[in-house]
Amino acid sequence: MAGKDDDVKVLGVVVSPFAIRVRIALNIKGVSYEYVEEDIFNKSELLLTSNPVHKKVPVLIHGGKPISESLVIVQYVDEVWAAAPSVLPADPYDRAVARFWAAYIDNNMVPGMVGVLRAATEEERAAKADETLAAMAQLEKAFAEVAAKNGKPFFGGDSVGYVDLALGCNLHFLEAIRRLHGVALVDAGKTPLLAAWAERFVQVEAAKGVVPDADDAVEFARKIQARVAAAAASTAANYTDIQC
Amino acid sequence: MAGKDDDVKVLGVVVSPFAIRVRIALNIKGVSYEYVEEDIFNKSELLLTSNPVHKKVPVLIHGGKPISESLVIVQYVDEVWAAAPSVLPADPYDRAVARFWAAYIDNNMVPGMVGVLRAATEEERAAKADETLAAMAQLEKAFAEVAAKNGKPFFGGDSVGYVDLALGCNLHFLEAIRRLHGVALVDAGKTPLLAAWAERFVQVEAAKGVVPDADDAVEFARKIQARVAAAAASTAANYTDIQC
Repeated sequence: MAGKDDDVKVLGVVVSPFAIRVRIALNIKGVSYEYVEEDIFNKSELLLTSNPVHKKVPVLIHGGKPISESLVIVQYVDEVWAAAPSVLPADPYDRAVARFWAAYIDNNMVPGMVGVLRAATEEERAAKADETLAAMAQLEKAFAEVAAKNGKPFFGGDSVGYVDLALGCNLHFLEAIRRLHGVALVDAGKTPLLAAWAERFVQVEAAKGVVPDADDAVEFARKIQARVAAAAASTAANYTDIQC
Repeated sequence: MAGKDDDVKVLGVVVSPFAIRVRIALNIKGVSYEYVEEDIFNKSELLLTSNPVHKKVPVLIHGGKPISESLVIVQYVDEVWAAAPSVLPADPYDRAVARFWAAYIDNNMVPGMVGVLRAATEEERAAKADETLAAMAQLEKAFAEVAAKNGKPFFGGDSVGYVDLALGCNLHFLEAIRRLHGVALVDAGKTPLLAAWAERFVQVEAAKGVVPDADDAVEFARKIQARVAAAAASTAANYTDIQC
């Protein structure tokens, strides 16, 4: 069996928020890993056999054993490399609160964000933008509570934690939405705490070189939108492929 | 602060699969708790203030502190009462696999099941039934792998674990679907391992008195279907209210 730091591979897509989570988590832990870029329009045999159920990135392969679903992977990384800085808090109640908000992000914020990018009509886009704004307002409130309690810079406290990873991996797409559609989802006016938090997040050492430039997200979003617009959208690979 | 076994309250709905998970987890741990039945058509002030984000059952209130989202609660229970029998496996990889399948159940199986019950047309119902059957086939395969590996009776091994809870809490609704719509989603022909597993699950001591009779699920499903059929469905409380 491979040693704990040996033989770690990540199958990802550079712009995939979910792959970004995994890569930052590994960086926080100081784990060296091989990164393999997937083409979601032409998936590798390794991806298809490693995640036969969902056929999506990210996949972490550790000592030959594959793990899928980004939040599952992040928790695995936190448990295996337990001696390194923690991603989840130590206290069970704090862990539950972190898991609650991470689930909120994936179930309430991300579907709205994806909906803005994939909307077939401007009416649908506006509805999805409202849905996402409502979720961002909830997250602003959640962060206000954290900040009021301990005045720390991140959901995780002094350093980036589970909720920071869950939310921060989406920042390049939020910026892409602002550029493409003029909707500011993280904004100094409406969500001042999250706007300041976002600036801190991208500067964290573990996130450097992992959070892509918004230009890449814009380009990717345009490709997806072209596919959605095309009649082939229903059968072709689409944005949901980069979800996990 | 309350002792670990003191002051534990569960806000639930008897037929709610998600509340059932929490109650069985507490039973496995031997934790005494006060159970409070909610009326999802007329939610209590305690529910609304305890889960202001989703306003849904279940909520666990421990020492006055509320926790929402059933899988988050189950993990909290497993961590707080760590000395009692475990719900999640000890090994990080096995934990990841269990979390993967629990997420699969909530993201792929449950929406199909709910879709069958809520379908507005027979065509939609058939599509949702096919979706659910595909998910059940995946779960049958997953359980076949567990059974091939260790010949144990449950996903969790010799006793009910995380995936067992995630899946088993839905059995009364699966049976209600069979009675109401003639669709067998767990079936000795198509999913023989899960059919045998289901019989074992409901006989487990921790599940007794918690998994309701299918009659209750049938009655509840009829109420929901009446609301869906009514024009008021879009604004009235609906089946999604019992999701967490």
